[in-house]
Amino acid sequence: MFMGASTKQGYDIAEKSRKIVKSLIDDKTAHLTPEERAIVERMVHSTADPEYADITRISDDFVHESLKSIRNGGDILTDINMVKVGINRYHGNVNCYIKDERAVKIAKESGITRAAAAMRVAALEGFEGIVAIGNAPTALLEVLDLVQRGEMNVKSVIGVPVGFVGAAESKKALQETEIPYLATEGPKGGTPVAVAAVNALINLDMGKV
Amino acid sequence: MFMGASTKQGYDIAEKSRKIVKSLIDDKTAHLTPEERAIVERMVHSTADPEYADITRISDDFVHESLKSIRNGGDILTDINMVKVGINRYHGNVNCYIKDERAVKIAKESGITRAAAAMRVAALEGFEGIVAIGNAPTALLEVLDLVQRGEMNVKSVIGVPVGFVGAAESKKALQETEIPYLATEGPKGGTPVAVAAVNALINLDMGKV
Repeated sequence: MFMGASTKQGYDIAEKSRKIVKSLIDDKTAHLTPEERAIVERMVHSTADPEYADITRISDDFVHESLKSIRNGGDILTDINMVKVGINRYHGNVNCYIKDERAVKIAKESGITRAAAAMRVAALEGFEGIVAIGNAPTALLEVLDLVQRGEMNVKSVIGVPVGFVGAAESKKALQETEIPYLATEGPKGGTPVAVAAVNALINLDMGKV
Repeated sequence: MFMGASTKQGYDIAEKSRKIVKSLIDDKTAHLTPEERAIVERMVHSTADPEYADITRISDDFVHESLKSIRNGGDILTDINMVKVGINRYHGNVNCYIKDERAVKIAKESGITRAAAAMRVAALEGFEGIVAIGNAPTALLEVLDLVQRGEMNVKSVIGVPVGFVGAAESKKALQETEIPYLATEGPKGGTPVAVAAVNALINLDMGKV
């Protein structure tokens, strides 16, 4: 069942919500592919904020590369645990290293955030797959650095960190790379947005739109 | 350190964000107490959405009763695990029963959502403290039912479920009870909003505004 519903009541609510979301954003998403539209719909469903239909940017290769990674059982890497626990139906690994003692050590030694340090730990661990950043701009920028230096094997990046300091800039920087991306413009984003995008991809992989 | 920062860089970002948030919502929050303002600021910081300053409703007794519960080490009950993992600096218990086998069983037998069934499990477990609902309107309505029937000992409720179906109505219903509450008007809300409110209370308890 879609939208995270696992009971009849949950399913009915999700179905009703889906219709409302569609009616709110159908015009704004007319230029998207059905797969991209399914992703944006889930983002709006999760936030009750139709503005995500205006501010979401998806590169042409994002859906294809992300679904290939999921089909291959590639890893999913998240910046914080709130994103990790929201992705609860994936057949592969969902990793978050923010509490890993190496991340704590690197953060302290290098004067960077723990979320950014956690990206370095993932690279050391040989991560290969989709990165989902729902909170920390510093983690997103670290991923871009690691990819540029050839130290991280990224298939796609969902970059939707939130906040008034650095978030918009980090998402702009992502869009200027060659990495397949989904990003939001401006300060808005967040863990439910990242979770919605990943879970929509997982549903698409299972043949549900 | 506030706003979840645990490193120098994280602290600097949080400090800068705090100033921007203040400048965006200072006028709108002038009628609030300093404690209430600290909570709303953190909600806006977490979502990058100043609208939370307009749509947040806090009962007069909410801060007092919530801080008393925290000081006494009362439980914190969440509807889903995304809220639970976001509350990572509390000295007491933070519980979520959505994956508890009893919740799965009750949901199936009664045809209710698992999030709602999880509230019944908490009541059976003798929960006493603050309820934080960031996702499921059905869980919030279940809490109101349990309290009305005298089956649950609630000190305060943070009711910020999100969505176009039932969320607004459930939050209206909360505001019509005698329970100390924090709620949002309309469909908006979410797990980061619930986490922000709880973590702001924990910081206030530690003497940080």
